[in-house]
This record gives sequence, structure tokens and C-alpha cells, in this order.
Amino acid sequence: MEHRFNPLRFFPTLGPHEPVLRVRDGDSVVTATVDSQGCDHRGESLAPRGNPQTGPFFVEGVEPGDALAVRFVEILPNRTDGYCRSSISPRVVDPEYVPELPAAPLARWHVDSGAGTATLVAPESKLGRLELPLSPMLGCFGVAPRGGQTLSTITAAEHGGNMDYNGFTAGTTAYLPVFEPGALFFLGDGHAAQGDGEIAGTGIEISMDVRFTVSRVRTEAPVRWPRGEDEEWIFTVGNACPLESATRAATTEMLRWLSSDWHLDALGAHLLLGQGVRYDLGHVGGAVSTVVCKVKKSLLPERRQDAS
Amino acid sequence: MEHRFNPLRFFPTLGPHEPVLRVRDGDSVVTATVDSQGCDHRGESLAPRGNPQTGPFFVEGVEPGDALAVRFVEILPNRTDGYCRSSISPRVVDPEYVPELPAAPLARWHVDSGAGTATLVAPESKLGRLELPLSPMLGCFGVAPRGGQTLSTITAAEHGGNMDYNGFTAGTTAYLPVFEPGALFFLGDGHAAQGDGEIAGTGIEISMDVRFTVSRVRTEAPVRWPRGEDEEWIFTVGNACPLESATRAATTEMLRWLSSDWHLDALGAHLLLGQGVRYDLGHVGGAVSTVVCKVKKSLLPERRQDAS
Amino acid sequence: MEHRFNPLRFFPTLGPHEPVLRVRDGDSVVTATVDSQGCDHRGESLAPRGNPQTGPFFVEGVEPGDALAVRFVEILPNRTDGYCRSSISPRVVDPEYVPELPAAPLARWHVDSGAGTATLVAPESKLGRLELPLSPMLGCFGVAPRGGQTLSTITAAEHGGNMDYNGFTAGTTAYLPVFEPGALFFLGDGHAAQGDGEIAGTGIEISMDVRFTVSRVRTEAPVRWPRGEDEEWIFTVGNACPLESATRAATTEMLRWLSSDWHLDALGAHLLLGQGVRYDLGHVGGAVSTVVCKVKKSLLPERRQDAS
Amino acid sequence: MEHRFNPLRFFPTLGPHEPVLRVRDGDSVVTATVDSQGCDHRGESLAPRGNPQTGPFFVEGVEPGDALAVRFVEILPNRTDGYCRSSISPRVVDPEYVPELPAAPLARWHVDSGAGTATLVAPESKLGRLELPLSPMLGCFGVAPRGGQTLSTITAAEHGGNMDYNGFTAGTTAYLPVFEPGALFFLGDGHAAQGDGEIAGTGIEISMDVRFTVSRVRTEAPVRWPRGEDEEWIFTVGNACPLESATRAATTEMLRWLSSDWHLDALGAHLLLGQGVRYDLGHVGGAVSTVVCKVKKSLLPERRQDAS
Repeated sequence: MEHRFNPLRFFPTLGPHEPVLRVRDGDSVVTATVDSQGCDHRGESLAPRGNPQTGPFFVEGVEPGDALAVRFVEILPNRTDGYCRSSISPRVVDPEYVPELPAAPLARWHVDSGAGTATLVAPESKLGRLELPLSPMLGCFGVAPRGGQTLSTITAAEHGGNMDYNGFTAGTTAYLPVFEPGALFFLGDGHAAQGDGEIAGTGIEISMDVRFTVSRVRTEAPVRWPRGEDEEWIFTVGNACPLESATRAATTEMLRWLSSDWHLDALGAHLLLGQGVRYDLGHVGGAVSTVVCKVKKSLLPERRQDAS
Repeated sequence: MEHRFNPLRFFPTLGPHEPVLRVRDGDSVVTATVDSQGCDHRGESLAPRGNPQTGPFFVEGVEPGDALAVRFVEILPNRTDGYCRSSISPRVVDPEYVPELPAAPLARWHVDSGAGTATLVAPESKLGRLELPLSPMLGCFGVAPRGGQTLSTITAAEHGGNMDYNGFTAGTTAYLPVFEPGALFFLGDGHAAQGDGEIAGTGIEISMDVRFTVSRVRTEAPVRWPRGEDEEWIFTVGNACPLESATRAATTEMLRWLSSDWHLDALGAHLLLGQGVRYDLGHVGGAVSTVVCKVKKSLLPERRQDAS
Repeated sequence: MEHRFNPLRFFPTLGPHEPVLRVRDGDSVVTATVDSQGCDHRGESLAPRGNPQTGPFFVEGVEPGDALAVRFVEILPNRTDGYCRSSISPRVVDPEYVPELPAAPLARWHVDSGAGTATLVAPESKLGRLELPLSPMLGCFGVAPRGGQTLSTITAAEHGGNMDYNGFTAGTTAYLPVFEPGALFFLGDGHAAQGDGEIAGTGIEISMDVRFTVSRVRTEAPVRWPRGEDEEWIFTVGNACPLESATRAATTEMLRWLSSDWHLDALGAHLLLGQGVRYDLGHVGGAVSTVVCKVKKSLLPERRQDAS
Repeated sequence: MEHRFNPLRFFPTLGPHEPVLRVRDGDSVVTATVDSQGCDHRGESLAPRGNPQTGPFFVEGVEPGDALAVRFVEILPNRTDGYCRSSISPRVVDPEYVPELPAAPLARWHVDSGAGTATLVAPESKLGRLELPLSPMLGCFGVAPRGGQTLSTITAAEHGGNMDYNGFTAGTTAYLPVFEPGALFFLGDGHAAQGDGEIAGTGIEISMDVRFTVSRVRTEAPVRWPRGEDEEWIFTVGNACPLESATRAATTEMLRWLSSDWHLDALGAHLLLGQGVRYDLGHVGGAVSTVVCKVKKSLLPERRQDAS
């Protein structure tokens, strides 16, 4: 079944909030997200700034200990003007460089979904009108966190959150651990494109139309950290500090996933990762950083039929 | 001019050692590296284990404050058997997972340069005979370090060293800051292929035939960290701890490079990196980690004619 | 005015929960805390494990932007049996050492408040019956966090939380930033004594009788991180990751405090800290670590009359 | 036997340099160190800046695998004027605070060894003429590093180096792992007093007269990191990055020391550290940080007669 949900109220946190919609295992939802400052497709402000979230969506029958699979079918900018911070964060440059950081207003981008491009419009600089390929993604999404917590949309943990990983595009399925009945899925913070690490503190921020499908995953081996897959890759996401800890979390999660879902013994999983692993950086420069551990599907043995 | 140098003696450190050969600006060198355990193309042990280095090569006319450009023309495995550690390092998994690490001897790989593949031969595991595409690279190379230091081949710093970045393949040009007269260039630790981060503590280790060209780069703005470029990318390399510091070093170096060699003002450089940067991980799990900051050449404005 | 509050219900999180008691600026509260497993002075279980908190106490007239001063007048173990984990956390030893960690049940301590000692009772080891001086403290306390968040009692941030600093003993006044009307003060996790860093994951855990006084502090310069003072020291508390970031947070907070409350110019504050600072470690080994930046009161110039 | 050695030449690195003096097991040396800028007791410049080192001293009969015990009998400022940096390092404050760092020349201190005080003389600030108690220490000392390396005096590792721990005062015995025949002991970088962490990048820098005694320690269990003891404490020193890694190194070293020299089983050592440990910070803000793990001697069982 497909639900159409037009959000009017948004949350500044992920937590056990009252659901805005109850859906069933396998259902699809067509909805929208406002931009990081709370503005919608008309540029109208619907919420205070800070990655306001659409949701939460309650998925019937999903219980703590399950995982929630969210397939992002469509993530599409629903207007043409995006913005980003002009300067890299003081936390992603050498301390001695901080006094050289340029002070500038938000930069403006023209987003052309038809052409598949984002073009820098302002401010003026020697860079001119840089054109980047569009790659729409969601910077912040997740479920209600562990232990009854309510967490800000500027941080990330096992439940997801502000991971700012530019691999979370349409065509990707995310798997999230479930801590509350119904999972309580939230989404927001759309980026028309984004550099690795979101080092400016923003991507090209824009409101989105989103279509996604949810389903319950029963697993013998628990999902401890967000996972994902697309046509080419499987990946796991560690949200921790420092990046070394995030790397350890993502790598350990991948070892466990390879063991549970691909018949691999520990030795096989280690040999595969040792020479075949790839890492991407999600959010850096905040209190928590995100590291993504990836393996190409073409390197994997056959998947278990009953696995997620 | 092209030199052929057949190494018989190897260094366990990078430092102001007696040069094995003096070459001129623009010269090429054809030489070989032993594997990380010190064995050559016949499997004969020529040096103790620990990334023994070929060199140092003294480049006439290169002085402290210059940069040294090293173009890797050819990096070719010169035998068919490679090896790697079977288990991921205890420093790249969660502490709680450490007792589960598999104990196993070195794994063996069959390296077929003609076919462009490395095939896992032993030990037995459910992974079977995994086949990876060949992507020969040098894990450890660099110049004599800053301040008269002599540094182990297991660490990395401004001078290069054990960066274990799988982007240092044939076709790449590396730029290194120079701290000693003649630069004193070293190379070794060849990998037929390697996962990101060298998380097993090894790539697919093998001896190599290497051809490279050296040239002096005079820069107004100093090169502070290793840089590189290939057909598609320019990149900078931060070797520091934790990964956040390495990210800051690489990012700041890229900002400075964009400013000195591509006419970019600070604002332009920041806007470009903010939405266009990519990061790769080199070595992780040691005392020092390596982060690579990359920008696609297609996004850059015109390069200064007189720049490196 | 002095309130006596006998808690029967406890929170596993710090957040904007319904207050259990409303008090006025300057009032005192006499109450009790259960131990980290939820047991009270009779050993009776009143709450699930995990540093359950007494409170929250609503302080009339205290608003976001103020600071809350909490003077701990008395922190007294209210039973004689305490416990601790026997083994240091795997996150506070070298990864290679993890397989050597001893597996042992909780250790038991006899706590004698009259004699001022805690004596190890079990398990048997070559250490025998170690006797430590009593130094009762609260491991976890704080106010409702920033941004409407609800945070677990195992983490710490600007609002306080699980800092596990053994300097928070009776006679200390803590200053906390206020994010919610009434501040909403929580307390729990009493330790009869505790090593630095709480490296075993526990102190000598025990239930406590606590007497504290609350007052509103209006400050021109905001309190951004927890602060404290006793007879001899003033101190600031950074809760961040890694310890370097916590050190930066605590040090910057101390610079700001010296400036606002002791007439010090930047130069004077820097000179004082540079040669006179002391650091202590609170909690280490979790996602967030705690560093305390201290200055001896005897080194300070005269305090502003109107300052906190 | 007591040697008097008047140094005229100094090293900017610790490494396998030619010894300046050969001494025997048990001998004492009376010598001097220049200040961090290379100036002696008359203020005369004898070496370039950067913690120039007196030594190395070759200790007859000491071999790799042994430990070297160095008892600091006397560390005495040999002039009256000291200096320090005025501003805290940009690496020990929040990135956002960096633009507020005061720019100021070196501060001057009057050091009165008779009175036991250091008094701030310049620059002028609202701090006035701060008076600190004298506590003379050596910021940088150690032996030739592992693996034939030559390391700068601004870093630290297993061999010692720039630890900047204000506990290394007269009356302390340091134990260092030995990597080269004769150990090759260096010393320098005297501080009349120093805040924790050396966060300004200097202590109160001054030249020193030093008297020390060296002796060989044969150990079954290797000394992996610097250790020390004074009347009241035993301690171990981890030099690593980030501080969490340094904490792990120091803690693991203390566990091993308690096991080898105090008859403690693993369980006893863990129980003791868990509730009795204290940590101090040495150098922070550089590439490598120093954490000191301490236990009070009064808490220890009887020492093995044959132990170090």
C-alpha cells in the first residue's frame, strides 16, 4: 500500500515522539522533507532551523530487536534553489589556519533536476559558476534511539541520525536497528549534492520529495549499526568519535554481517575485508563522526536465502 | 637520462643515509623493491623484515625548501607469489571483538600480471579462491624526514613514509617536501592490491620492478605534506593522529595548493572543497593514520602555467 | 527552606521529564540516591540498572541562559556494602591485552563511614583486603540537556551527566548551564570512592544520602560547560571525545571564566593557565570522556563581587 | 664513581649518536642542560633552539632488552631568569577560540632557587606579578629510540623524549627501555615549574645543573614504556595519540609492572587500579600526548626483593 503524507509539523530531535502515520510492513510512503532551515518547496518556513525531521512513521509489527529496512525509491529536489555554507568548518582545518577562514554569507546554487546539475550562483569568487552533478541524498534520517533517548538532529549514533553520507541516495536500502515499538522512522536534511564529510557543515541544502518503502527484518544476529546496500555495494556505518572508533564500529559490524548473511567463516570475512574493503567518510567535524565500511557485491559469495 | 639500479642493500628507516645513486633533475630510474619481509623476485631474502627500502637516491640540485616530484611510470610485480596477513589488526575492530580474531598463518596469493588478477590460494576458508583485480602500488616511500630525523618504515609524516595509500599506482606523480640536500628518495613495500586502510596490516605483499622520474619543483608556497595527481584527480595526504587531525592536515594542504596553483581565492577554494571534496583512507590502525583529500581535475579552473 | 524528598521513582535518562519537586532559589533538598543498579539503602531494588536518577527538581525562576549553582553539602553512603567491577574496561587497555582481561564477578567492599574507609571483601586475590580512604562523590548528575534532548545516564555533555569525576564531593559547588525552565536537576550514581577515569566502568557503587542547595546564577558571560569550586580549587569540565577535545573544551571554558569573574585580561588568563593549570580525568573509556581543568584559588586575583 | 661533564655540544635529536661520555653501572654524573633555546647559565647561546640535549651517555654493560634506571638526584636552575610563551597553544583551545589568542612576546620570570619561587616579571597584564612555587623538572630526556631511529626532541615514544611531565623532579627514578648498546642517555629542556600538559608549549624554561645516577635493570618482563617512582608513587608513562591511546599504553604498562614486581595476579592488579589509579597529563597539543598512570605506594603489597 502507498501512503501520501504531507507534513506540516517537524521534529528537531529523533525520539519516541507521537507517530504522524502508522504504516504496515511493506508499505510505501510518499512524502516531503523541508530543508535544513525548515523551508519547504515554496521556500516557506515551516519549522525552526536545524535539520527538522518529517515523521515519525510507525511501522506495525516492528519490535525492538528487529531491524527496519527502508528502501529509498525516490529522493528528488522539489524546488530549484539550494544553499550551502561558504566556508569549511574551523574543526576541519588546522588550528593555525582558523584565522584565515573566509567570512561569507550562505552560497546559493541553482538546482536543475532535469539537467542533473547544481550550479553555483553566488557569492562571486574566482571559482566562477561551478557546476556539480546532482546526487540527491538525505543527510539525516533514522529511528528512535536506544534507551528511550531523544537525540538532536546534529548528532548520530546506532539509530542513524545526522550521518551526512552521500551514499544514501535513491536506490539504496538502509537497515536500522529498532529500539522502540514501530521503529519510529524520521527523515530530513536533503542535499542536492554533498562533498565527503560535509566539511562546510552543509551540503547543497534543499527540500525534497521522497518515496520510500519500509519492511521488517527479523535477524538472528542483531543489527547494531546502520547498514545499507545498493546495486554495487553493501556497507555498514559507524557513528562514533574519533574517526578511528567509527572505523572500528563499521568494520566490526561488517564482519558480523558477512558472517550472518553470507555464510562466511571468520577467516573468510577477514581475508575479504583485509584486501577488499573500501571506506567512505560521512559527517566529520562534529562531536560524532561517520565512517562507512564497504564491500563490492561482486566479491561476495552467495547470500543466504533467508537473510535480509 | 635513465639509470638502472640493482639494489643489494636496503634501509629499515628513512633518514639522511649515504645515497646509493646520484641522479639529475629529470632523470629516470629503473630499479626494484623487495617485499615487506625483505625478499626479492626470486624469493631470496636480502634484508630483514619491516618494509626495507631501496635508496636513497640523491637528486642533484634539489635543496631543502624545494619539493621533489616523483612520477611513478611503472610499478610491476616481478614474481607471482604474494602474501598478506589473514586477520584484521586488533586496532581496527571493537575492543570487545578482539578475542574473536582468527589466528591464521600468512595467506598466499597468486599474482598474474598478464591477467591483471590476484587470486587467494591459501588458507582454506568459505571465501574460496577470491580473485581481486591487480592494482600495484607502493605502500611506503618518501624522502629524508624533517629536522635530521631517521624514521621507521612503519610510520609516516610530512616526508611520506608508510602511507599505504592504494592511490599511489603507476601513472601517479607524488610531490614531497624536501628537508635534506638531494631530497634522498626511498621506496619499498609494494602491494599487488590493497584494501583501504591496510587494515590487516599488509596489502598483498610482493617485490616490484619500478620505473620513476624525479624532478625538482620550486614553489613560492611551500609543500608541507605529500601531494599527488593522476589523470583524474589531485590529492593531498595528511599523516597524523587521530584521523581527524590527518583530515585537517590534508584539507588545509589542499586549500593552500588550490590557492597557489589554481588562482583560487580563499572563498573559491572553500566553496569548491565544501561540495566537491572526496576523502580516501590510507594507513589506519598504527600510531599515525593517513587521510587523502581529493578533488577532481574536471572541477578545477585553469592551472597556473608556472606551477608544479 | 529545606525540603525532604524520598524518591520512589527514578529516571534512566536526563531530559525534560515531569519534575518530582519544585523548589525555590536558595532552597536545600535532603534526598537519597539509589546505586547504579537501582538498589537503595536496604539493598532493595527500586529501578532497573544504569545509574537511575533521583529528580528532576524544578528550581523556580531559573530560565534557559541562566546557570544553576548546586552546592553539595552532604554526600554520605547510607549502607555498608558497595560493589565494583573487577576488571578494567577493554577500552582502557591496549587492544592486544584484551584477551588477558580477568573474568570475575562484581567485587564487594565494606564501607565504613565512621572509620572513613572502604575495604575490599571479595573476590580473593593477591591484593588481599585492600583498604581505601572513603571519598564519597556523585558520578552522574546534571540538568535537562540542550535542545530538548533526553540523554542516557551513561553519557555526558554540556548539561553534566555521567562525568564520573571524583572531585564532585561534599563541599563542592557545581555550576551548570540551564536549557529548560526550572533547570530540572537530576542526581545519582554515588561512589564511596573511585579511581581516576572510572576505568573499571564503576567506582565503589553505593546508595547515598545527599543534601544540596540550589541557586540561580545570572551571568553576563554564559556558562557553557559544567564548572565547580571547592575550598582550594576552581575547575571547569569538558565532556567530549577524544580527550584532546575535552581538554580544549575545559581549557576554553576556564579562559572565559577567568575573564568574566576574575578581571583577567586574555594575556593574564593565558599566562596563569600556561604555568599554573592542573588537569584531572573524569570518565574515560566511553563514547565521551571527561577532562577537568583546575586552577588553585591561591593563584587567582580578587573575584568580582557580583560574580558567581 | 662520580663524573663531571661540562657539555659544549648538544643534539637536536635522540638517536644512536656518538657518546660524549662512557660511564659504569651505578655511576653518577654531574652535568648541565641548556634551556630550550640553547642558552646556558650565563645566557650564552651554545646550540640552536628546540630542546637541545646534553649527552648521550653510554652506560657500560647495558644492552638492548635491559632497562636503564636513572635517578635524578638534583635538578637545579643555574641562573635566575626564565621564560615562557605567553599564549596557550591553538591546539589546546576550541577552534572557534583561536582568533582570540593573545599575541605577545615571551614572558619573563625571575627564578629564586633560595626562596623556591618563580615570579612573573613581564609582560604586564592584570595578573600582575604572579608567584609560583619552584618545582624544577626535565621536560625532555630519554634513550636512543627503537629500531635505529633518530627522533626529534619535540616528540615522545617508548624511549622517553619530550614528555613534559612535571612529576620528573629531583628525587624521582625513571626506568627506560633500552634499544641500543649502552642505552645512550640524553637530557635537556629544564623547567623551573610547569603547568600540566605544557599547554603554552613551554614551561618556565631555564638552564639547569643536574646530578643523576644510572644503573642497569635486568628484567624478566620487559619495560615497554617509561616508568618512574618517587617516595610516594609509582607511575608509568604512555606517549601516544590520541590521549585515549596514551591512557591505554600507560595503564597496560602499569598492569604488567604490578604483575612482575609486586606479586599481583591479574585480578588483584585490576582491582587495585580500578579504584586506586590516578592519572596525570604530560605534554598535550603536539602530535603525541603523554599520560601518566599512578598508584600510591601505600596501596601496594610487598615488592619483590629482586625486582627493579
